[in-house]
Amino acid sequence: MTNNTFNLDKEQLIQQSFVQMDKHLQGAEYNQAQKLALTCRILFENGHDSGLAGQITARGEKPGTYLTQRLGFGFDEARVSNLLLVNEDLEVLQGDGMANPANRFHSWLYRARPDVQCIIHTHAVHTAALSMLEVPLEISHMDNCVLYDDVAFLSKWPGIPVGNEEGELISKTIGSKRALLLAHHGLLVACSSIEEACMLSIAFERAARMHLLAAATGKIQPIEPKLAREAHDWILRAQRSAVGFAYYARRSLRNNADCLE
Amino acid sequence: MTNNTFNLDKEQLIQQSFVQMDKHLQGAEYNQAQKLALTCRILFENGHDSGLAGQITARGEKPGTYLTQRLGFGFDEARVSNLLLVNEDLEVLQGDGMANPANRFHSWLYRARPDVQCIIHTHAVHTAALSMLEVPLEISHMDNCVLYDDVAFLSKWPGIPVGNEEGELISKTIGSKRALLLAHHGLLVACSSIEEACMLSIAFERAARMHLLAAATGKIQPIEPKLAREAHDWILRAQRSAVGFAYYARRSLRNNADCLE
Amino acid sequence: MTNNTFNLDKEQLIQQSFVQMDKHLQGAEYNQAQKLALTCRILFENGHDSGLAGQITARGEKPGTYLTQRLGFGFDEARVSNLLLVNEDLEVLQGDGMANPANRFHSWLYRARPDVQCIIHTHAVHTAALSMLEVPLEISHMDNCVLYDDVAFLSKWPGIPVGNEEGELISKTIGSKRALLLAHHGLLVACSSIEEACMLSIAFERAARMHLLAAATGKIQPIEPKLAREAHDWILRAQRSAVGFAYYARRSLRNNADCLE
Amino acid sequence: MTNNTFNLDKEQLIQQSFVQMDKHLQGAEYNQAQKLALTCRILFENGHDSGLAGQITARGEKPGTYLTQRLGFGFDEARVSNLLLVNEDLEVLQGDGMANPANRFHSWLYRARPDVQCIIHTHAVHTAALSMLEVPLEISHMDNCVLYDDVAFLSKWPGIPVGNEEGELISKTIGSKRALLLAHHGLLVACSSIEEACMLSIAFERAARMHLLAAATGKIQPIEPKLAREAHDWILRAQRSAVGFAYYARRSLRNNADCLE
Repeated sequence: MTNNTFNLDKEQLIQQSFVQMDKHLQGAEYNQAQKLALTCRILFENGHDSGLAGQITARGEKPGTYLTQRLGFGFDEARVSNLLLVNEDLEVLQGDGMANPANRFHSWLYRARPDVQCIIHTHAVHTAALSMLEVPLEISHMDNCVLYDDVAFLSKWPGIPVGNEEGELISKTIGSKRALLLAHHGLLVACSSIEEACMLSIAFERAARMHLLAAATGKIQPIEPKLAREAHDWILRAQRSAVGFAYYARRSLRNNADCLE
Repeated sequence: MTNNTFNLDKEQLIQQSFVQMDKHLQGAEYNQAQKLALTCRILFENGHDSGLAGQITARGEKPGTYLTQRLGFGFDEARVSNLLLVNEDLEVLQGDGMANPANRFHSWLYRARPDVQCIIHTHAVHTAALSMLEVPLEISHMDNCVLYDDVAFLSKWPGIPVGNEEGELISKTIGSKRALLLAHHGLLVACSSIEEACMLSIAFERAARMHLLAAATGKIQPIEPKLAREAHDWILRAQRSAVGFAYYARRSLRNNADCLE
Repeated sequence: MTNNTFNLDKEQLIQQSFVQMDKHLQGAEYNQAQKLALTCRILFENGHDSGLAGQITARGEKPGTYLTQRLGFGFDEARVSNLLLVNEDLEVLQGDGMANPANRFHSWLYRARPDVQCIIHTHAVHTAALSMLEVPLEISHMDNCVLYDDVAFLSKWPGIPVGNEEGELISKTIGSKRALLLAHHGLLVACSSIEEACMLSIAFERAARMHLLAAATGKIQPIEPKLAREAHDWILRAQRSAVGFAYYARRSLRNNADCLE
Repeated sequence: MTNNTFNLDKEQLIQQSFVQMDKHLQGAEYNQAQKLALTCRILFENGHDSGLAGQITARGEKPGTYLTQRLGFGFDEARVSNLLLVNEDLEVLQGDGMANPANRFHSWLYRARPDVQCIIHTHAVHTAALSMLEVPLEISHMDNCVLYDDVAFLSKWPGIPVGNEEGELISKTIGSKRALLLAHHGLLVACSSIEEACMLSIAFERAARMHLLAAATGKIQPIEPKLAREAHDWILRAQRSAVGFAYYARRSLRNNADCLE
């Protein structure tokens, strides 16, 4: 049947790709805690190392509960057995130690956004450097279209984010988008799955790095909004995040399998 | 016979070098599948890591067939046993899984260019950042002359490249050159051997990195076209690519020999 | 008791965080020599590698004595058994070999600042590059507020710092601050504990890197002084440095436990 | 005798330092071939990796003979047993394979400079990027003063350097200096010992990186020539190069001891 597909139009080819991907590609079967611990490791290995700063949470089985990493441990130290289950007030329901007090704004955002299952906040270095300029993240590359028209911008820094005020401000500013650039601070990603949140966080920091590299040299050119939205939807299919996450998980586990313990 | 060569002119010395290199230097003896898997690893280790993006193909033994890596696997996971043999319609003839739907433009390019044996397309980060500026790659260093006057430029982004339209556009834009910079996207290299394609891809990303580093600081100065073409032909001798590839293959296999399995 | 904390104001939440952190977080129990050797390793692993340049000292048990690393060894080679105990004149009281003659300005600074227990001086590459511009370090990110209003600036280079003149000049310029940027040279941090000095050195180089990344692209925006000072005091609590240091120590020891020998 | 040294002037302290360093610091005892192989490895590990480009030579025991690495091998593959002994015409006297034809200019330079014992030429990436701007290397940091007023500049690229013309041009341009920046090409260092050449090559690439980092952000400020020359002489003492080289050698051998075989 060679050559048949050379007559198909783009929409037909896209639909055909979806059918094939549904058949041939699977994500990996990890539980929520494993996914969260893996995400910590994956982010550490992809430029999100900033000492003890940053937090990751995912909704627990019971409403108003959240899995999160333990304060005082780096992302590279996360493993299933040292995660915490906390309530909205950050009281520990399961596990030893305490959560990061800055998790407070996660509670606000989960209340405001029932669609959100996972929140990631990091101070990855290129995002942090870009945030000092008080300019929005420029999306001008196909890969970064996963974030096209999906990054809100908090252009003023409200100080250390441990108060309820910051929870309200952040929830309001991100609105219904998946991501937020916080001036003088870092990135926030709020997604419908841990896998998607992990992939978008990697994309965010890479986009910030590319923004800095390109803008140091010349003028970043805009891309066609219609094509950018098409790419956004193509990359953001749930299955694609699952497959991407499974890849990064294999890559991380190749070096450090203790994460799943 | 000391001192004799001090009287030779440059052309004589170049010819003498060729004779010596033909005698003393050999490439390594890998089959096509081994070369392709090695190329994936080498590129991953030399800055071409961008998650699951990018594709590599080489012509198979039968006309209209292509070896390629499996969708859902990173370049760092490629090995002989997980490569696919596909036809022009991307139907799998040998192996499990599916090819990247974006391989479609490879089929168009192989049709248009009978001289091409291997195509590499990646989103290496400096190339990707440079591509956001919609400017051509500047070749201004001796090493990069391997690409002198050999990089076409697609200055507008046509959207996700899974349609036949993109196949036509890319084939037409690259013309008879060996390389192409795709705005808001990445690089493409189309060569007469896997070894050459691998070496040119490494050179492309390094040239993009040098372009960004230099242009962030000052004005890149042009080089003399005649000398640049001389360097281009000197570096591009088939044997030189083979020797360079053999070196990078040894370097990769030193850490991960599973690639050849 | 869910939801109760949503009515607390920021100051109440901060105080609550302090109580929880005092209960749940501890630093690690290393002696002075172990902390000093660990600091050398941690700095090496976090961008402070510059060959044999740089010195670290901490006050010894007897007044006028200092622990320091041995000249001719890199930070990556420091271990408890090769540290030296020296007096103010840099005469070796315990250990083999000699101290760096540039330690002289440490003696001056310890005299001038009884509160200082540990001094770190390095030529970390981004700090060193920034220092060539003769501009102060710009603090414009929450994490870097640990250094807000706490970095003095020596804008002229007095030559190689082995004389008593440089000791006087440096002591005078840093005044009562915790840090100093030395033009055409590097960074200096003078703190009340080894842990704090280690954390501030990491923060200094990261801040310099962010300064260069951001300023190459646009104009760094100032942050609100009141909020910056609040963040400064929040991050600088002694316990926080201890917990951060314990984390970096675990990270370093995971790869190289010989440091404690 | 505490406090006595606080009354010494800078010159007295410098002389005292020399006495102490002569007593306490030694270089390592390697033979010429071991030093040359180690230098290849050290350069590879410190940013001088550019595939198969670059050459290193040192004078052999007999006049008109040179030790060099074998063409087709990377710096990371150099070991005592695969080095070559060649004459001025690049004929192999000992060992298998051939030398890089671009070694020709080394022969010219050894003839012109009887003081030179070792020549290193690499295309380290920051040096190579800087060389595209056709501007001299700016020395504006204490550590880089090892190269102060000691870097000549070849501002035009003469093409691939395999001819006798390039040998003449390079010898004439470097004059009596220790280093040379070759536009659109790379760096050259010519020193009285392998150790010094190794240390200056590391310093050169680091200085180029700092030049690019700083100049992308602002205006590099000049340093006081008198102080810079003082620092130059201080850093360049033969013993200091030996001690620095011994440190980098230990660091390299920690990971790969096969270099000495």
